[in-house]
Amino acid sequence: MANRPLILVVNDDGIESPGIRKLISIMNDFGDVIVVAPDSPKSGMSHAITLDSIIRCKKLPRNDNLQIEYSCTGTPVDCVKLALNKILNKKPDLCVSGINHGSNSSINTIYSGTIAAAIEASIEGIPSIGFSLLDHSIDANFEESDYFIRKIIKKILNNKIQRNLCLNINIPKSIPNKKIMGIKICKQANSKWIEEFEERYDSRGEKYYWLTGKFICNDDRINTDEYALTNHYISVVPVNTDFTDINLMSKLTSFFSE
Amino acid sequence: MANRPLILVVNDDGIESPGIRKLISIMNDFGDVIVVAPDSPKSGMSHAITLDSIIRCKKLPRNDNLQIEYSCTGTPVDCVKLALNKILNKKPDLCVSGINHGSNSSINTIYSGTIAAAIEASIEGIPSIGFSLLDHSIDANFEESDYFIRKIIKKILNNKIQRNLCLNINIPKSIPNKKIMGIKICKQANSKWIEEFEERYDSRGEKYYWLTGKFICNDDRINTDEYALTNHYISVVPVNTDFTDINLMSKLTSFFSE
Repeated sequence: MANRPLILVVNDDGIESPGIRKLISIMNDFGDVIVVAPDSPKSGMSHAITLDSIIRCKKLPRNDNLQIEYSCTGTPVDCVKLALNKILNKKPDLCVSGINHGSNSSINTIYSGTIAAAIEASIEGIPSIGFSLLDHSIDANFEESDYFIRKIIKKILNNKIQRNLCLNINIPKSIPNKKIMGIKICKQANSKWIEEFEERYDSRGEKYYWLTGKFICNDDRINTDEYALTNHYISVVPVNTDFTDINLMSKLTSFFSE
Repeated sequence: MANRPLILVVNDDGIESPGIRKLISIMNDFGDVIVVAPDSPKSGMSHAITLDSIIRCKKLPRNDNLQIEYSCTGTPVDCVKLALNKILNKKPDLCVSGINHGSNSSINTIYSGTIAAAIEASIEGIPSIGFSLLDHSIDANFEESDYFIRKIIKKILNNKIQRNLCLNINIPKSIPNKKIMGIKICKQANSKWIEEFEERYDSRGEKYYWLTGKFICNDDRINTDEYALTNHYISVVPVNTDFTDINLMSKLTSFFSE
């Protein structure tokens, strides 16, 4: 086993979700797998970390002698931090996050715990990939995902691109008699959510809200992730952790010096 | 009051923190102020949104007839979404977040609820600014902040730069007999946290963790926020919501086509 890569698997849907179980089974064919994932669904947690309360983490008994698994009460990013600092005794060669049940394309990048976990690993210099399937169903069909994830992982493990690589990969929903067209390198599309908070009243007559919403993409560029996915391609967006809007810097410099 | 700008104030330290009380008092001199802020500290919540539980929001009774205030059980980003969709009946002219107790420079941008709230408003086309003071103390001295925040707000309200402007502004800690040198437009410095999880055991002998850490900045460029702050300047970083690593796109395109 000495030359097998060490692979950290994480997600935001929780350790028992079908998406991470599928990803673990694929990764077992590529390396030694350690799973550190939330004990319950943590969707929409973005890059949140647990500062005001404690984190618990327990090793799960598994009988198949393959991956080692830890379930954690924290956020997806907590899981990565805990894995790198308390659980693993060497730096993993790769971190994969997902497979998320539902899209993390375009503006969803910013809300996603799946992508945040991958970003956190990349900050630590570990090549990382967040995988998402455009299918929220618990019975989502991961058959086509399996083929393409293997192809991508093989390429990434065989060719070091850069240490802090972070890829946000979205996979179209499986449709009978329609094959995935291939892989496209894309930009994050401009988009947003139009919120429609649902108002309800509890038994004491007190109002409360559920956050719901409608996704809007008005970006008509053809090099975006939304365009690729609409045309049944897998979208691959390289993600940056420097949020500086470089184009605005000189404008602001003159603005503030006036 | 017809021509006074409408200003949304939010934060992540909670509605009773001295930083937001200071920011509210400044903003009252510039426009009509609506505050929608977390009912308790929500530091490190990044861009998290509440999907798996309910959100409550209540109007607070205030007797000074100035700002209107709502306290919300959700995250900083929930506060902005709720303000724009349920509380305000027109789009605010400006959103300000903070004043955070502690730095949100460099990699802290990604973990910060203060900056996430400002980013969320900017996604909605509202010019937005996150203010942070490099002083965690509850008794932090906001005197110099007051002067510079007023200067910046006046400039931003009088000159529309762009609709979706988002600025991450950090202010050096107040030091006796040392004046702030001015304002610098900066890049986010490369940096990271080295985690040092503190292990403890509860009364049943079960292990738990507290997330702690040490900030590390190895970036020696002189145009970064860390450099500006070290030299006692206010750092202003324009923040982007497109996370695409444009420089990597062509490399990846040839990589995946091989």
